[in-house]
Amino acid sequence: MPPCQRVTLLDSTLRDGAQGEGISFSVADKLGIVDALDELGVDLIEAGNPGSNPKDKEFFKEAAGLRLRNARVAAFGSTRRKGVVASEDAQLRSLLDAGTETVVMFGKSWDFHVERVLGASLEENLEMIWDSVAYLRSEGRRVIFDSEHFFDGFAANPAYALDCLRSAVEGGAECLALCDTNGGSLPEAVAAGVEAAMGLSRVAGPAVTVGIHAHNDSGLAVANSLSAVRAGALHVQGTLVGFGERCGNANLSTIAANARLKLGLDCLRGNGLAGLSRAVRRVAEIANVTLDEGMPYVGLKAFAHKAGMHVDAVLKSPSSFEHVEPEGVGNERRILASEVGGRSVVMERLRKILPDAQKGDPAVGRALERLKDMERLGYQYEGAEASLSLLLRKSSGAYEPYFELVRYRTTGERSPAQSGDAVAARGTAQAHAMVQLTVGGVEEIQAAVGDGPVHALDQALRRALARFYPSLEGMRLADFKVRVIDGSGATAATVRVLIESRDSDCAWTTVGVSTDVIEASWLALVDSIEYKLEKDGVKAPLTQTQRPEAV
Amino acid sequence: MPPCQRVTLLDSTLRDGAQGEGISFSVADKLGIVDALDELGVDLIEAGNPGSNPKDKEFFKEAAGLRLRNARVAAFGSTRRKGVVASEDAQLRSLLDAGTETVVMFGKSWDFHVERVLGASLEENLEMIWDSVAYLRSEGRRVIFDSEHFFDGFAANPAYALDCLRSAVEGGAECLALCDTNGGSLPEAVAAGVEAAMGLSRVAGPAVTVGIHAHNDSGLAVANSLSAVRAGALHVQGTLVGFGERCGNANLSTIAANARLKLGLDCLRGNGLAGLSRAVRRVAEIANVTLDEGMPYVGLKAFAHKAGMHVDAVLKSPSSFEHVEPEGVGNERRILASEVGGRSVVMERLRKILPDAQKGDPAVGRALERLKDMERLGYQYEGAEASLSLLLRKSSGAYEPYFELVRYRTTGERSPAQSGDAVAARGTAQAHAMVQLTVGGVEEIQAAVGDGPVHALDQALRRALARFYPSLEGMRLADFKVRVIDGSGATAATVRVLIESRDSDCAWTTVGVSTDVIEASWLALVDSIEYKLEKDGVKAPLTQTQRPEAV
Repeated sequence: MPPCQRVTLLDSTLRDGAQGEGISFSVADKLGIVDALDELGVDLIEAGNPGSNPKDKEFFKEAAGLRLRNARVAAFGSTRRKGVVASEDAQLRSLLDAGTETVVMFGKSWDFHVERVLGASLEENLEMIWDSVAYLRSEGRRVIFDSEHFFDGFAANPAYALDCLRSAVEGGAECLALCDTNGGSLPEAVAAGVEAAMGLSRVAGPAVTVGIHAHNDSGLAVANSLSAVRAGALHVQGTLVGFGERCGNANLSTIAANARLKLGLDCLRGNGLAGLSRAVRRVAEIANVTLDEGMPYVGLKAFAHKAGMHVDAVLKSPSSFEHVEPEGVGNERRILASEVGGRSVVMERLRKILPDAQKGDPAVGRALERLKDMERLGYQYEGAEASLSLLLRKSSGAYEPYFELVRYRTTGERSPAQSGDAVAARGTAQAHAMVQLTVGGVEEIQAAVGDGPVHALDQALRRALARFYPSLEGMRLADFKVRVIDGSGATAATVRVLIESRDSDCAWTTVGVSTDVIEASWLALVDSIEYKLEKDGVKAPLTQTQRPEAV
Repeated sequence: MPPCQRVTLLDSTLRDGAQGEGISFSVADKLGIVDALDELGVDLIEAGNPGSNPKDKEFFKEAAGLRLRNARVAAFGSTRRKGVVASEDAQLRSLLDAGTETVVMFGKSWDFHVERVLGASLEENLEMIWDSVAYLRSEGRRVIFDSEHFFDGFAANPAYALDCLRSAVEGGAECLALCDTNGGSLPEAVAAGVEAAMGLSRVAGPAVTVGIHAHNDSGLAVANSLSAVRAGALHVQGTLVGFGERCGNANLSTIAANARLKLGLDCLRGNGLAGLSRAVRRVAEIANVTLDEGMPYVGLKAFAHKAGMHVDAVLKSPSSFEHVEPEGVGNERRILASEVGGRSVVMERLRKILPDAQKGDPAVGRALERLKDMERLGYQYEGAEASLSLLLRKSSGAYEPYFELVRYRTTGERSPAQSGDAVAARGTAQAHAMVQLTVGGVEEIQAAVGDGPVHALDQALRRALARFYPSLEGMRLADFKVRVIDGSGATAATVRVLIESRDSDCAWTTVGVSTDVIEASWLALVDSIEYKLEKDGVKAPLTQTQRPEAV
């Protein structure tokens, strides 16, 4: 396919994304993100500024050995310093040393910035752009020119903003990426700026394309990127999950899906959109950021239906309340359990447990009542389907406990901090737990130490159950989340704990709620174990009092 | 000002927002949100569907007695049922019973939906629209017609979609709100639909306006709303914080700021945008939703600067990296402390503690080292400025401890659940804590029970310090947050605890990190108390070994 049929994506998660508050990447994190973006089929990965910090320099050394399937890694830096010959500029040298085929070079195009922030004359800045680009070209690099503050510059002094682009073209840049650095532009202004730049690129020939780099300060980064594409831009910069300084960069996952599904433009190599949701989750996980589950296309909520009426219509005909098919972007439809969702959702789930349940059944009424009671206590089952299934089983009468708790006790202890400095003296705390329980009338007691009382409790519980239920060996806890539901009670606040468990077949999530974080964890732990045993078809033992031979 | 000079905002947080996953409002919550929206100066508050659930009915009874300054409350419902006379339709009756001056009525305008979901003929649907609106008008109500799936309908069968609008106008509707119900439309399609509807409203005269109701499934809800306004719409529906089913409704806070600051259109009564950030926080707090701090205009990150170069430029001239002034939307600029931010930020803060500190000072170097060490452990100071100030004090040598911990011990215990049902048997857990410490060589030991071990520890620590530091009486813990930093360790995961404290003067936030949630809470608690004492100018006692009279 000739290049003009596709829109090229440049992902800057590792560079502009790393400027976001709360974001910090190790070299290993960066390599993981490169792999996720490459698998997804992004064209270019802007991976850092080798001249600005040693970590980025180390990364480029590692990256040189990578064998990527789809993507190319690019280094990022600025035009040369004022008054320095390009070939003697340390920063340009470090860009060359990074050893990438493509370099993204930013330069100023807003007269105000040139004079006030850079302290250079307008003419000087044009020379800096021209000879920085030309130098990199002479060293065999392909150059994308990021025109910083282009739209502000184009509004203030359009002739000068275009002169800056012209200098980059004359220096040999193959792409002019117009940056809405402050994120304040509207789609109409973006279209106008792109059209003006297109005029230059048409004169320069088809080898020069126009690109867009948008920020989300006005909530318009996606719209501005699409507006640029409609006006002729063939290169879009952003970050896959929208990470970036202040309100973030343009979200490439949303843009890629819109470009393909709404505008009919390809922009991912490889399997395309089918891997979109997975790639977004991988990157968010590596970045250690809780994904906004309302994110278009890829969020857990993006195809979740709650309102009773909507649910009925969606079950009849998905397109009635879904703009695209969730499978197409690697996501899935979810029908939510909640008071608004009503009986039909509860029915659908209850039938998995009691296949003969009917809508008028008292069991359905009891299940709904119970669900409402639990929601009032702060439970939410929307993300904890395993606990919901246990709850329905309990209210249907089909539940048998696998064990009965006699007592647990946890202790936490901290000894004196040597320096009297509470922040620095970490790791001096100790936690222990004891669990006493009965399984089918047989008593067991076990104790454990742990990294904190919840971990100790988890260990002690597993030990106590091990001899009765050997299949628990194959289960592990994969994730642990704590959410304060009502922070106004401060340290007496109610917390909701979610635990994700896995075995070799699947993953499941359970929930517990209490003002006591240990108790909330306990409730979620018990559910996770009971769900595992039930799923494996393990029979619950009769309790002591139910056993015929009971004393 | 004549009405056509303003854009009217309708907030649907209480109706469409309540369809969002994880959102549920009590009647008290709803009244609180009405107050926040009214204070902000929103025109219309769509508050629920009185025919769909008893909670909404109860709300409208309460709302009738409210004295609002700026807003009017509106009830929401659908056109009459097929085959029922409007005056005998139970749902229309409940809309009238809600007693609001304005009713928002939704009806179908997509032929596919009329025939497939509603099961009505196209002609029947037009009659349902006409006589439902006419009936409400005959009972003295003002009617806004929400044209469900308008843009999908307009694409599939434009003549019929417009016929639906015409029926509403002929019935007496004063506003035609065009809904992008599935959130799949692009700004260009929205503009085209609005222009077609404007043709009808022009024929009907200036009393009929066109409105827009957008959803964010394509990440374009704000852009689509602005596109509609540019095409002539004078009424915008959305939710202040963007709550809503799936990916949410159009975010009215972003739209209000863009409309005023970018398009020069007023849409808030009262104090306008200055109250925007506060209103957003109030609504998010009542809804118990963690605000997306990257939200345009109102998020904590919206005017936060991290990159060293940016920070220098922003300090020189704010407009160089900010598209609008943070104060104008009730927000503020923040300069972030982090490795990228570099020395100048640390310097700025350190000077508050050591006014004579210079850039080359060893104290600055030590502070930077320490900051990096702590960040490696999982600390983040961006939201915990009080802990940062203590950290800098510690590394500058200006820190004296207010007390020394000898030992704390917490116990958590849970007795048998009567029913053997771990989920239902809540509140049977007990927690105790003991704290032993010295203040200036004087030993104190106190114990407490609490709602969980963290609460017990908090109580015991305050008791132990009370006689030494009476000003702690005036301090309370206002919020408590737990974040699992690395969930892959499951119950042994590292957690970060943030505690917000308040006294009569101000609020401050502190942070603690550990694999043990109790220890992490302890570290944040200790910081919160030390910060309070330091802020109040309380002198730290000499430690036992430092005291000349020490044994």
